[in-house]
Amino acid sequence: MKKEKITIIKVGGKIVEEQTSLGNLLDRFTAIEGKKVLIHGGGRSATQMAERLGIESRMVAGRRITDEATLQVVTMVYGGLVNKNIVAQLQARGANALGLTGADCNIIKAHKRPVKDIDYGFVGDVEHADGEMLCKLIEQGIVPVVAPLTHDGRGNMLNTNADTMAAETAKALSPFYEVTLMYCFEFPGVMRNPDDAESVIATITPKVFEELVADGTVSGGMIPKIENALNAIDNGVKRVIITKDDVIDGTKGTHITAEAE
Amino acid sequence: MKKEKITIIKVGGKIVEEQTSLGNLLDRFTAIEGKKVLIHGGGRSATQMAERLGIESRMVAGRRITDEATLQVVTMVYGGLVNKNIVAQLQARGANALGLTGADCNIIKAHKRPVKDIDYGFVGDVEHADGEMLCKLIEQGIVPVVAPLTHDGRGNMLNTNADTMAAETAKALSPFYEVTLMYCFEFPGVMRNPDDAESVIATITPKVFEELVADGTVSGGMIPKIENALNAIDNGVKRVIITKDDVIDGTKGTHITAEAE
Repeated sequence: MKKEKITIIKVGGKIVEEQTSLGNLLDRFTAIEGKKVLIHGGGRSATQMAERLGIESRMVAGRRITDEATLQVVTMVYGGLVNKNIVAQLQARGANALGLTGADCNIIKAHKRPVKDIDYGFVGDVEHADGEMLCKLIEQGIVPVVAPLTHDGRGNMLNTNADTMAAETAKALSPFYEVTLMYCFEFPGVMRNPDDAESVIATITPKVFEELVADGTVSGGMIPKIENALNAIDNGVKRVIITKDDVIDGTKGTHITAEAE
Repeated sequence: MKKEKITIIKVGGKIVEEQTSLGNLLDRFTAIEGKKVLIHGGGRSATQMAERLGIESRMVAGRRITDEATLQVVTMVYGGLVNKNIVAQLQARGANALGLTGADCNIIKAHKRPVKDIDYGFVGDVEHADGEMLCKLIEQGIVPVVAPLTHDGRGNMLNTNADTMAAETAKALSPFYEVTLMYCFEFPGVMRNPDDAESVIATITPKVFEELVADGTVSGGMIPKIENALNAIDNGVKRVIITKDDVIDGTKGTHITAEAE
């Protein structure tokens, strides 16, 4: 039986933190047909709020070191300020949004990252995403709006990477839906030439990916990004699209799939 | 057909803002049999956070004047910090908690309070609570944890009195359940003699209330509190209990009902 389609959009950065760009994004999000989920970041707002509260933001390889004071900041900024702002604005557009962290309905449980070289503090590595619970909510016409926070099942919230939340949500929903996972970032897709917006690679399959790595077209931080996308594909997600945030209708960007469509 | 019972507990003040007292409260809340809803305040935390951010808290007759900066504070403190802390701790106790503001699933819609003598700013007067939506969630085994925030349906969050949220939620759920609404406060109930904890009035019916007002036993701020409770009773709520937060099993406190039970 053909599964119904669902679109999971991950947006982060400035776009969700400035009212004009957020409004435009939410217009486009609302226009997406069918079932959908929005997963958001909010790092800039968290950094600003921490600064106003005299809490130093320490980042290692793009990840926030989350001590207790910082956990309070991200819990209130991601789970409260950014999330509820998005929820209220989606409601105004007729989408029945429901703000969620991983703790709500226990949708994403995690454990505190073990300390190796670096102690990231209250940062969660995802253990389990409850696709069935999410599916029940979605089937009631609810549009989940997920903040990058999980919990450890022992009463503690944990700061969690929004890209990871998106991938885990996509995988957990794939038994129930044909899932398209869309990562919005500042570029129009994976480009052959970083200076040429026209050089977006339309489709990357595992075979194409091998070739792109071998000939050096794809390198650096783009390799783990695509590997993560291929991991999602291996775990049932139909396609991952990497695209710019002003195009979320699925027509553009780089499509990462098991086989060329 | 006999309706299933539900207990709606409203707690505010210090009890939800200090880890030890919150833990004790959540133990007792989790132990309540059957379906339940928790509605919380968080005013002290909001005032503290506002102070740390250099935002002055202005109160008129116990109500917070909510300008734009204050709205941001209450949105992140009530909807993020306090709410998610409670949700994570209920999950740790095996209750499938879901944090909600009025914007989430559009459960409580409000409008900005009209300016008369005082401009309260972004404060919401409740228009409609969606009992059917709440009921659907509750029937899935979900325990709603409601923060004192609503939305105006036009994209704005609004600061809303937690007692009012509790009463409106209770009324909205009464077509579906036999509702007990419990207000936890610092006294063991409505007392004949404020200095004597043993003088709690066990039951107040409309007739008893008239007598208590007539003979001066009940006066001042307790009159509108009981009037609100009687209004909830008139609108389908089975009983309202005013009690101390260390007894939420329904055995003590003042029971306000249509007829003596």
